[in-house]
Amino acid sequence: MGIVLGAHHYGKAETRLFRIVRDDRRHVVRDLNVSTALTGDFSAAHLVGDQAHVLPTDTQKNTVFAFAKSVGIAQIEDFALTLARHFVDDVQPVTSAEVRIEEFAWERIADHDHAFRRVGAEVRTTRVSVGAEGARVDSGVRDLVLLKSTGSEFAGFLVDEYTTLPPTHDRVLATSLTATWSYAAAAIERGADWATAYDAVRDVLLDRFANVHSLALQQSLWEMGRAALEARPDVASIELVAPNIHHIAVDLGPFGLDNPREVFHVTDRPYGLIEVTVQRDGDD
Amino acid sequence: MGIVLGAHHYGKAETRLFRIVRDDRRHVVRDLNVSTALTGDFSAAHLVGDQAHVLPTDTQKNTVFAFAKSVGIAQIEDFALTLARHFVDDVQPVTSAEVRIEEFAWERIADHDHAFRRVGAEVRTTRVSVGAEGARVDSGVRDLVLLKSTGSEFAGFLVDEYTTLPPTHDRVLATSLTATWSYAAAAIERGADWATAYDAVRDVLLDRFANVHSLALQQSLWEMGRAALEARPDVASIELVAPNIHHIAVDLGPFGLDNPREVFHVTDRPYGLIEVTVQRDGDD
Amino acid sequence: MGIVLGAHHYGKAETRLFRIVRDDRRHVVRDLNVSTALTGDFSAAHLVGDQAHVLPTDTQKNTVFAFAKSVGIAQIEDFALTLARHFVDDVQPVTSAEVRIEEFAWERIADHDHAFRRVGAEVRTTRVSVGAEGARVDSGVRDLVLLKSTGSEFAGFLVDEYTTLPPTHDRVLATSLTATWSYAAAAIERGADWATAYDAVRDVLLDRFANVHSLALQQSLWEMGRAALEARPDVASIELVAPNIHHIAVDLGPFGLDNPREVFHVTDRPYGLIEVTVQRDGDD
Amino acid sequence: MGIVLGAHHYGKAETRLFRIVRDDRRHVVRDLNVSTALTGDFSAAHLVGDQAHVLPTDTQKNTVFAFAKSVGIAQIEDFALTLARHFVDDVQPVTSAEVRIEEFAWERIADHDHAFRRVGAEVRTTRVSVGAEGARVDSGVRDLVLLKSTGSEFAGFLVDEYTTLPPTHDRVLATSLTATWSYAAAAIERGADWATAYDAVRDVLLDRFANVHSLALQQSLWEMGRAALEARPDVASIELVAPNIHHIAVDLGPFGLDNPREVFHVTDRPYGLIEVTVQRDGDD
Repeated sequence: MGIVLGAHHYGKAETRLFRIVRDDRRHVVRDLNVSTALTGDFSAAHLVGDQAHVLPTDTQKNTVFAFAKSVGIAQIEDFALTLARHFVDDVQPVTSAEVRIEEFAWERIADHDHAFRRVGAEVRTTRVSVGAEGARVDSGVRDLVLLKSTGSEFAGFLVDEYTTLPPTHDRVLATSLTATWSYAAAAIERGADWATAYDAVRDVLLDRFANVHSLALQQSLWEMGRAALEARPDVASIELVAPNIHHIAVDLGPFGLDNPREVFHVTDRPYGLIEVTVQRDGDD
Repeated sequence: MGIVLGAHHYGKAETRLFRIVRDDRRHVVRDLNVSTALTGDFSAAHLVGDQAHVLPTDTQKNTVFAFAKSVGIAQIEDFALTLARHFVDDVQPVTSAEVRIEEFAWERIADHDHAFRRVGAEVRTTRVSVGAEGARVDSGVRDLVLLKSTGSEFAGFLVDEYTTLPPTHDRVLATSLTATWSYAAAAIERGADWATAYDAVRDVLLDRFANVHSLALQQSLWEMGRAALEARPDVASIELVAPNIHHIAVDLGPFGLDNPREVFHVTDRPYGLIEVTVQRDGDD
Repeated sequence: MGIVLGAHHYGKAETRLFRIVRDDRRHVVRDLNVSTALTGDFSAAHLVGDQAHVLPTDTQKNTVFAFAKSVGIAQIEDFALTLARHFVDDVQPVTSAEVRIEEFAWERIADHDHAFRRVGAEVRTTRVSVGAEGARVDSGVRDLVLLKSTGSEFAGFLVDEYTTLPPTHDRVLATSLTATWSYAAAAIERGADWATAYDAVRDVLLDRFANVHSLALQQSLWEMGRAALEARPDVASIELVAPNIHHIAVDLGPFGLDNPREVFHVTDRPYGLIEVTVQRDGDD
Repeated sequence: MGIVLGAHHYGKAETRLFRIVRDDRRHVVRDLNVSTALTGDFSAAHLVGDQAHVLPTDTQKNTVFAFAKSVGIAQIEDFALTLARHFVDDVQPVTSAEVRIEEFAWERIADHDHAFRRVGAEVRTTRVSVGAEGARVDSGVRDLVLLKSTGSEFAGFLVDEYTTLPPTHDRVLATSLTATWSYAAAAIERGADWATAYDAVRDVLLDRFANVHSLALQQSLWEMGRAALEARPDVASIELVAPNIHHIAVDLGPFGLDNPREVFHVTDRPYGLIEVTVQRDGDD
């Protein structure tokens, strides 16, 4: 049984691109982190060190910068699709390309024309794949840190010999959410309104997190995902990855103090980790 | 010449405290990172391992949690002062105490009573010292990420044999600001309005960063610091630490493209680093 | 088309476990980071908030600690297999379990019986899955930082209109390697000698990195992977993920100095990123 | 009372320099992170934006690279002194300069001539200041992670109303040590043997940590510092900063298991933090 080359791809990761649109006095700024990865027959590069089919990663970086000027950046999904299609269409050995983009948000300082401040810790993301079977767009948000100070329970769970956790009907529920949703093929085909979809999904995730009385983080996530799919017909599925950031009520009894869920210790590790996909019936 | 014990102190660093104020249905949340450090005669602990004068760091942590309940958290400066005074007044061997607090900001999700999201990357800080000579309060903000897309120059600088940088009259100016200001003794004595002062200093820093046409980051910082002192008589001095986050215009010439300061590469390292204190005449 | 629950699992991430074996005066220490994840029918927890099938993540953490005492830690693969099998066999709703472990290495200080120092930045890893189809073991190493100061070329590559990189026949080649290899089912069945295999794979990776004259990082990786499979019949495949940490020769010409590849600037981002799997013919 | 410019300095932080010495087939590599900071009369840059006295930070970076070639890197202290003296002597407005260097260690892979791997997490450091009053050299090590699995007590401590910690006569003692020692002026003058001193101080710190039966981390640190000064007459003082990385014995009682200090949970935050300086009598 011989030894053979399996799956392989390569690219340039984390090209930090900043783009100023200075068409008039009121500048617009875009702040991206772009990663590209190419798939194709690069076996000669591995097996005998022949680079004839290998477009340097340095060139991929140059392409990102050049396209930021020549094509411009509408939404990150558009920019990623343009880049990915270029690599597949124009670079002969490439059969498929994946482009990942993170976008960092800035807002104007007091409505200034050209002075800005970074806002929020949350990051908008997309991962676009283009290949023989067409295009795939998975967009999302990460580092969306959410907390409920009440309205969260965890009780009635399975108990085995290693279980010491008491059930609770009032706890702090906190997470740093990563959400990634897949656009339906038809939406990608006709060009979805990426920005509107992003805002809508994000808003509905926040709304359901806030307003669902939570019997478990699992339940909150399901309701959040379901609402996202109900709100956006162009979204085929959504994956939610949610660490359960434990807030432990401190026992103040030794100091003669009651602690009716007012003082908590926030722990770093370990943390619960819930991962769930919500999708449309018939998909997988 | 013998070997002796020099300066020494000890404490509990980074107690992660979360406090819910649930006096009515509309909760208020506070999210702090508290570090305490005690100074006094702890030489026996070092020299012979005698802990009789050493209040355990575990106790310091307990004290932070207990005071969060029994005293409550008004502004972080108040909480730090209360903690520091407790250690100095109530723990016999302690001659001075330093309490550092970082506060992370949360905002309501759609004005919800008990659902919140973390806002901003910026962190509010204070460092309080209490000792024989009274109290000192240094408050501030860190991770305030600012950028100007124009209105910044750097020219006319000193040129030596290792200088290759061309002068520029239009560049991107970006920083992640750490500002720390010292309150005047009188203000600490009477109890400053810490929250109002924080907002005012932060606003004036943003305003001057935005509106000063910058001939150098140094000049912007001076104008920012000066304006802070002008705005707040209760602030004695302010220290600004500002990395210069370089945004390098990409040469698109090889691709037949002009780049009139539209496409930039954001670099990680190295970075310029400017540190400056602005103070009132007569102080040092 | 309805909305349904898709793939879902949950667990406790990053339980930091430290184990002292103190059978005699000469202690042995083990330092692990353990993450568990359970798969099964947890749909009721999501859909209606019914936790009856949900073993708390807190219990999973307890189980890790309890097994560290009652079973002990031989190799991390053994410990992960034992934990995963327990969850599948003893917790009724669980159909499959994944356990990931990172191990941090310590060495004795001057051969001391109970004093140790952390060694190396590299981390030994395993990811074990146990389900209906049996067990899978993927072990590896991460943060193995390697560099060749010569013996590395990159030339003859594909050139398009965005290519500016000059070919080179002598460059610095550096990476922070993550290697993950899958053990053959038969080896898992009979219980592989995990520690011997780890040392052997790691050694052969280092040897091939060092001794293969590299025409591209791709080629080095292929030779490293191939040698690993040749050395270990119990390894079915190996995946190598290798950032290309760029060392850029500095142009010292403006200072009247030649730089025959002696002075380099190490960059953080962007970086090339090569991912490749080497496997046995007939597998996929 | 007017507003004036206080202390100010500026420089280039974190220039990542890699140097290959390729005088023969057996290469030597050096991997440094260099930060420079200049002090002088730069008030015009701040007050009126006049850069005539400001040597660009870009030039400082260039100087680091150029000197790495023209002067070479003996020990990091030598390199830092050379750079600092250049800025003070050759750049007219500069009155003092501080150069900080971190060095990352590499070792040969199987004694190879030009293939290397990073070793250890620990980092060698120096901070050199040159000004009117001469030169100051503070060298050290950071990220030296140490642990004793027994031979450490903590008992007899001060108890107040917030104390709940039980005394212990056998605990795990762990830290990630940062040590910084100051060389005596005479040693700097004649050129200390920096590498020998580094090895000697580091070895004695390890030895005392391992072999002192610890009644408190404070005591261990004092003994470590004292031994360093005894071993090296050229060291005037040493500062030790030591987080107490808490290893908490897990209560396995609920699972019917005894835990005679065998199974521990390693916590991230909070942590004790001990800082102490050991010096020669008569110094301060």
